[in-house]
Amino acid sequence: MTLFTPMLRPSPLTAIFSDEKTLQGMLDFEAALAQACAQCGVIPESAVELIASQCQAHKLDAQALSQAAAGAGNLAIPLVKQLTARVKLQDEQAARYVHWGATSQDAIDTGLILQLRAAFSASEELIEKLISALTGQVQRHQHSVMPGRTWMQHALPITFGLKLAGTLDALLRWQQRLYEIKPRVLVLQFGGAAGTLASLKDQGIPVARALAKQLQLHQADTPWHSQRDRLLEAAGWFAGVSCTLGKFAGDFSLLMQTEVSEVGEPIAEGRGGSSTMPHKRNPVSCAAVLTATTGIPGLMATLYASQNQQHERALGGWQAEWETLPQLITLAGGVMQTSWELLNGMQVNTARMRANLDITHGLIMAESVTLALAQFIGKQEAHRLVEQLCHRALDKNQPLAALLAETPQVTRYLCLKEIETLLDPQHATGSNDVFINQVLARAAQQTGRVK
Amino acid sequence: MTLFTPMLRPSPLTAIFSDEKTLQGMLDFEAALAQACAQCGVIPESAVELIASQCQAHKLDAQALSQAAAGAGNLAIPLVKQLTARVKLQDEQAARYVHWGATSQDAIDTGLILQLRAAFSASEELIEKLISALTGQVQRHQHSVMPGRTWMQHALPITFGLKLAGTLDALLRWQQRLYEIKPRVLVLQFGGAAGTLASLKDQGIPVARALAKQLQLHQADTPWHSQRDRLLEAAGWFAGVSCTLGKFAGDFSLLMQTEVSEVGEPIAEGRGGSSTMPHKRNPVSCAAVLTATTGIPGLMATLYASQNQQHERALGGWQAEWETLPQLITLAGGVMQTSWELLNGMQVNTARMRANLDITHGLIMAESVTLALAQFIGKQEAHRLVEQLCHRALDKNQPLAALLAETPQVTRYLCLKEIETLLDPQHATGSNDVFINQVLARAAQQTGRVK
Amino acid sequence: MTLFTPMLRPSPLTAIFSDEKTLQGMLDFEAALAQACAQCGVIPESAVELIASQCQAHKLDAQALSQAAAGAGNLAIPLVKQLTARVKLQDEQAARYVHWGATSQDAIDTGLILQLRAAFSASEELIEKLISALTGQVQRHQHSVMPGRTWMQHALPITFGLKLAGTLDALLRWQQRLYEIKPRVLVLQFGGAAGTLASLKDQGIPVARALAKQLQLHQADTPWHSQRDRLLEAAGWFAGVSCTLGKFAGDFSLLMQTEVSEVGEPIAEGRGGSSTMPHKRNPVSCAAVLTATTGIPGLMATLYASQNQQHERALGGWQAEWETLPQLITLAGGVMQTSWELLNGMQVNTARMRANLDITHGLIMAESVTLALAQFIGKQEAHRLVEQLCHRALDKNQPLAALLAETPQVTRYLCLKEIETLLDPQHATGSNDVFINQVLARAAQQTGRVK
Amino acid sequence: MTLFTPMLRPSPLTAIFSDEKTLQGMLDFEAALAQACAQCGVIPESAVELIASQCQAHKLDAQALSQAAAGAGNLAIPLVKQLTARVKLQDEQAARYVHWGATSQDAIDTGLILQLRAAFSASEELIEKLISALTGQVQRHQHSVMPGRTWMQHALPITFGLKLAGTLDALLRWQQRLYEIKPRVLVLQFGGAAGTLASLKDQGIPVARALAKQLQLHQADTPWHSQRDRLLEAAGWFAGVSCTLGKFAGDFSLLMQTEVSEVGEPIAEGRGGSSTMPHKRNPVSCAAVLTATTGIPGLMATLYASQNQQHERALGGWQAEWETLPQLITLAGGVMQTSWELLNGMQVNTARMRANLDITHGLIMAESVTLALAQFIGKQEAHRLVEQLCHRALDKNQPLAALLAETPQVTRYLCLKEIETLLDPQHATGSNDVFINQVLARAAQQTGRVK
Repeated sequence: MTLFTPMLRPSPLTAIFSDEKTLQGMLDFEAALAQACAQCGVIPESAVELIASQCQAHKLDAQALSQAAAGAGNLAIPLVKQLTARVKLQDEQAARYVHWGATSQDAIDTGLILQLRAAFSASEELIEKLISALTGQVQRHQHSVMPGRTWMQHALPITFGLKLAGTLDALLRWQQRLYEIKPRVLVLQFGGAAGTLASLKDQGIPVARALAKQLQLHQADTPWHSQRDRLLEAAGWFAGVSCTLGKFAGDFSLLMQTEVSEVGEPIAEGRGGSSTMPHKRNPVSCAAVLTATTGIPGLMATLYASQNQQHERALGGWQAEWETLPQLITLAGGVMQTSWELLNGMQVNTARMRANLDITHGLIMAESVTLALAQFIGKQEAHRLVEQLCHRALDKNQPLAALLAETPQVTRYLCLKEIETLLDPQHATGSNDVFINQVLARAAQQTGRVK
Repeated sequence: MTLFTPMLRPSPLTAIFSDEKTLQGMLDFEAALAQACAQCGVIPESAVELIASQCQAHKLDAQALSQAAAGAGNLAIPLVKQLTARVKLQDEQAARYVHWGATSQDAIDTGLILQLRAAFSASEELIEKLISALTGQVQRHQHSVMPGRTWMQHALPITFGLKLAGTLDALLRWQQRLYEIKPRVLVLQFGGAAGTLASLKDQGIPVARALAKQLQLHQADTPWHSQRDRLLEAAGWFAGVSCTLGKFAGDFSLLMQTEVSEVGEPIAEGRGGSSTMPHKRNPVSCAAVLTATTGIPGLMATLYASQNQQHERALGGWQAEWETLPQLITLAGGVMQTSWELLNGMQVNTARMRANLDITHGLIMAESVTLALAQFIGKQEAHRLVEQLCHRALDKNQPLAALLAETPQVTRYLCLKEIETLLDPQHATGSNDVFINQVLARAAQQTGRVK
Repeated sequence: MTLFTPMLRPSPLTAIFSDEKTLQGMLDFEAALAQACAQCGVIPESAVELIASQCQAHKLDAQALSQAAAGAGNLAIPLVKQLTARVKLQDEQAARYVHWGATSQDAIDTGLILQLRAAFSASEELIEKLISALTGQVQRHQHSVMPGRTWMQHALPITFGLKLAGTLDALLRWQQRLYEIKPRVLVLQFGGAAGTLASLKDQGIPVARALAKQLQLHQADTPWHSQRDRLLEAAGWFAGVSCTLGKFAGDFSLLMQTEVSEVGEPIAEGRGGSSTMPHKRNPVSCAAVLTATTGIPGLMATLYASQNQQHERALGGWQAEWETLPQLITLAGGVMQTSWELLNGMQVNTARMRANLDITHGLIMAESVTLALAQFIGKQEAHRLVEQLCHRALDKNQPLAALLAETPQVTRYLCLKEIETLLDPQHATGSNDVFINQVLARAAQQTGRVK
Repeated sequence: MTLFTPMLRPSPLTAIFSDEKTLQGMLDFEAALAQACAQCGVIPESAVELIASQCQAHKLDAQALSQAAAGAGNLAIPLVKQLTARVKLQDEQAARYVHWGATSQDAIDTGLILQLRAAFSASEELIEKLISALTGQVQRHQHSVMPGRTWMQHALPITFGLKLAGTLDALLRWQQRLYEIKPRVLVLQFGGAAGTLASLKDQGIPVARALAKQLQLHQADTPWHSQRDRLLEAAGWFAGVSCTLGKFAGDFSLLMQTEVSEVGEPIAEGRGGSSTMPHKRNPVSCAAVLTATTGIPGLMATLYASQNQQHERALGGWQAEWETLPQLITLAGGVMQTSWELLNGMQVNTARMRANLDITHGLIMAESVTLALAQFIGKQEAHRLVEQLCHRALDKNQPLAALLAETPQVTRYLCLKEIETLLDPQHATGSNDVFINQVLARAAQQTGRVK
């Protein structure tokens, strides 16, 4: 844990990638390997229990491992040495069978896959919580009218529910993607020194099968020591979910600006204050999410770059995954956790949303007037005319309604009552409800299916 | 086309992202929109034919469009203006109904999706060709023994078939992923100015359905103007396939080094020569692929960064896709095309592969000796002993066989004949055949299924 | 030129990196090489004039070059062939001396350096224009009070001049950096096939000197075919300036939001309108700048990644510069040009700035009250108390002044008059003037010095 | 420290960015601030000693800080709270004056600058050690002939000294850049809540001056809370040096390949062995360096992306620096340290270098034959002829010398003796010595000057 862990990585995924869990992943491989080898008659059954009993991370000297790894080039070499030494203390015979037939990378990669499995599982829960929280908020705000904004300018009215539904829709896709990715990623790594399982002779495949079964992992058609597309795919998932939530945090921080004030972060003691400005309520959750998503594109660039792994096992590309993947995944965990807290506890000021719709004196409704006029004078002419009136409204700080009412080209076709109705945002959210209902229906259906 | 297009983008995907096709994508949207609107009674049937007839990119002034886009902020605004003007020349009434109910981004995004559909289709063909070429080469070289290399050092013998099978295995996964991605990505964009289809009132959804049907695209549950995960997913596919092939090109260039010379690029007049060194045969195909894959991580970083799109339609993030996506996709097309040419026409020097196995005087077979000895003296002691002999072999430049034969700790357990057999790489490729057969079986099955 | 060139690359730097100028850079090298070789007696004087006369890009068949480059691996090989053929048509003897002693990369890299020299020169002008425009605006708005914003929330009052001065200060640093970078980057590339100038025997260095003099470039201590830190440094400059201006464009677009409306982009016919919403004035200049700066981090990642160039001349890393550097530099040119237009023609609504200061009912001045109270009751207690009052002011939508006036813990130490003064932003800009004057002084001094 | 720290960050820079040093940087700011404020009469002299005495990181509860930072949004807020509480325990009056006039970011940024100063200092030493080691090796191998390689193919002979001189040349440039960067980067951050030092009224600048003097930092013309070009510049330096050394490690690992074997990593017990292959000597130092440089482009992308910091103090961009900068800088420290160990202890097999020159049967000398022939038959004809012979030599596995000797078009102009001389690599390194001497002279001169 570093000083920034609670801020940036406050999710269950952080513990999954602790140093201890990293070592335990490799040790789980070693224990299962001994069992699989014994099942296939490759090593004596008698060695299994002792080896397995020593495969516990807390029994190792992690500090020494870490130091030795610098010389050895990876963690598995000193780990196997320490493990063998511990077994040997009790049974010199059994010690001979530690790590039988495997290479360092088999242990490291399979350990990582076991961590990924736990991370996927924790992520599924987080995604479900996010979907559930979003579903509730979408329903709550299905009719909360607010300014839709494009190019960071008021455009037309939308509802806050529709804005949230966009995020929900994207999260449903990420949930679906995870469903597809999991069986492809959760595979055993087992190839021996050069990916042929040569040292196991004709027992390679049987041991591999027993090992996969033992660890409840899928089997790969070939060892994937230097084919890392599965890890890229997994990383891409974590990065992508984060960026979807980063877009939401970005929007949220915009809506929370002093001048906009349509939403606020959950209120809690000691949360979002300033060291010098007592009135500040800083969007600390948004900041945490945006901090993570600022770094994630770079981390993904690293993982794409590290796909070019030389020959059967690589130099640099493989090793670059060791810090990058956990960093990315624990950041993503933090993003999911923090976003869920934000979605769950956010303050929504629907009155302010409605009020903000009026600050352009009706300009936000200009399109509906344009379209109404277009029926009479053509779209381009209507566009030109209303644009002119809008600029005048802005320049003179006058309501658009008044200007329309005094323009003969308008009043020739529209009465005052029609103008008023055309300028009312409450009745101008188009297909808002259908869109929202479509997403809610999919959420209901998919949550059932995935479970 | 720029000076580097033939080198870096020699695939059918390049034409799909030409300026003309980019404009045509938007125009196809506009034509279909007119048809859909007329079907739903939103605009008069009479306007459709004329509008549709003008929706041809070659009729527009692309230069003027491009200039106007700088002021307008996007291409669709001046495109709609030009289109409307052309229609107006013939029928002032019809001109009113151009672009009815849509926003610029609807045209731009749907146009992009139409380009993506063509790009997916062309990619499917390229992937099939790659899989087919690889399948042939894997079969041809299933027993071509060569040094397996880890950390860029000789490790144990593998076959060239197994090396190729790793790439084939990964490509089969990319093929499968494309199969999953397509229906999620190929969706209509249609939301109007702020994503509510407000200007179409109660005809929004019917028009959207008719439009999707017209363009043979799926419908989205909500407009996705600022939810860009689908594009990220598509881009990630192109980037990922490229990186898998980049790994192959990297290996190929290593195998082609003067000292290794196990493979060579296809020979053709004027290919890979040097301006000053007549003996050079530069790996120009590898260079083209590696050039692309050097730039792809950065392009993906841009697309991840651009996921944070503000509110309903964005400022900067969206626009950053316009150059980045086509650059990435056409680079990926080039990578696939060039890799296929390389795989198809590559020269393989199996004699040299076999010869290279011997340059370490048998050290590459050290593991099998270690394992044989391990049965008698334990794995760690065997490892220690053989490592010592290996270092001596290297230092003295002597065959390992000779050193083993004169070491009592070895000869106590292994006779000379056994040593010789243990050191023969031909019989030391372990599960090579099973791995290869598994991949070939999947290739056979999947190619059938996907088609 | 592509469809997006006018939008994203509207500066003089674009033409510097046209296809024609790229070829001309190489041809300038070839012409100067012939002259230098003749000066040193390496080739006959008689060949020079004819070779030089053919070194004009418009005489070459660029299309054919481009096609041939795909097979040859770079542009210089077919360029030298075309050039030689043209010379040969007139003088078979002279044709023998084309490209004497050089390697392809010598021509390509030196051509690039000549383009960089022009790009630096154009950038110096743009930077000076930016500094000049900023200086004027800083002076104009030295006392234009506005809300300072931190964490995207109102913090304390600042002036618009101070905000601009921050950008000016950074641009002065970029100007200084360019001054340092130029002599290090503008060096000749000349090493021959492997960087030894072997084919020129003892005339290598004399020819190199004559060539550098001819092209008015510095000489490198060693050929830098695979040492690319100079290019990285140059690219880093273009990227960095862009990001400084990207920060400004980001702030500008935030200040231009409908609810904030403190600034506006320059107004011009057909600028920033919407295809459907007549009231829209989209920040198209900001969008263009932010589009560029969204992509620039990824392009820099590519250039960092491409630093790892193998051996004497590389495979992939070098070639990746060919598209990436021009893309980055022309984007940066566009950023500078567009930012200058924005700075020059921007609309500033100082009344709105002042008005926005009041929307928090005085909360923005809370710090000064806190500090005044701190003298009596300690900083932490004052902070706690004022924070409480601020939250109440927010909740009840009441002015902070009123709440302070009714709080005995406050009125015990501060009279109403003092409270009022403490809450007046006009007198609360601290060291604003000193900071601004420091930057203006440096600008005045540096502009003189650099010129 | 994590499991990978000894492998990837084995330099003095790691300790500089420990959690404790991060807190101490902020505390050093707070102590100096109290002193500066007292010097200017802003706070009572009596408070200074107590405050300063508590500004020791080991006295704080880092765990609690870290937890509180998640809610507060940064580390400085809870740090100031803890510090104030500790002071208050002893003197309630003094506690009022902690952090007087400053904002969180003043403490955080200045603390970072103090860490950067230490990092620059440690880097200067590392760079000097690298330059010194390289200088020695360049001198030692000034005449060690080896194959120059371009496109990963033999090109022409070079010397190992020249290859090393390229890296030395680049490092001398990085040394020079650091010299320029330092005064620009090592500046105080002090602006108060919104960058105006408002709370210090007319004492802002005097306190700032006293504070800068106290901390021996330069003063900035304006606060730079959201202008981060200095940090980008610093980061770019660390990234750039690393990439220069990454290129060297890349070349080294290529030269160390089993088939090439021209160099080897330093030999030490337990270094670079394999868990299963006793003959392996893995290039673990190269791997460590390449691991770092695989990740650095992505980290730089993050820092470029984070330049866009909103308004006076930012949301996301600023915070993204907190983990990214230390990660990058400590990786760079590791790269420098490991590269120095590699350069210092590397094994160089000059005999093998010489032998490798012969494996193309003289083809590597083809250029000199071409040039000799060019005098008689023109460059293009000579090129064509020798290229043909080279291809035949490759196809038939025959020495080029023999083929030349039996080709009348050659022997018409060159006698056998001349052919033999032309094919001797020992006399074909051109300007090798001048290039090397130029770099050595600059190294000698610059090392003196910089010191």
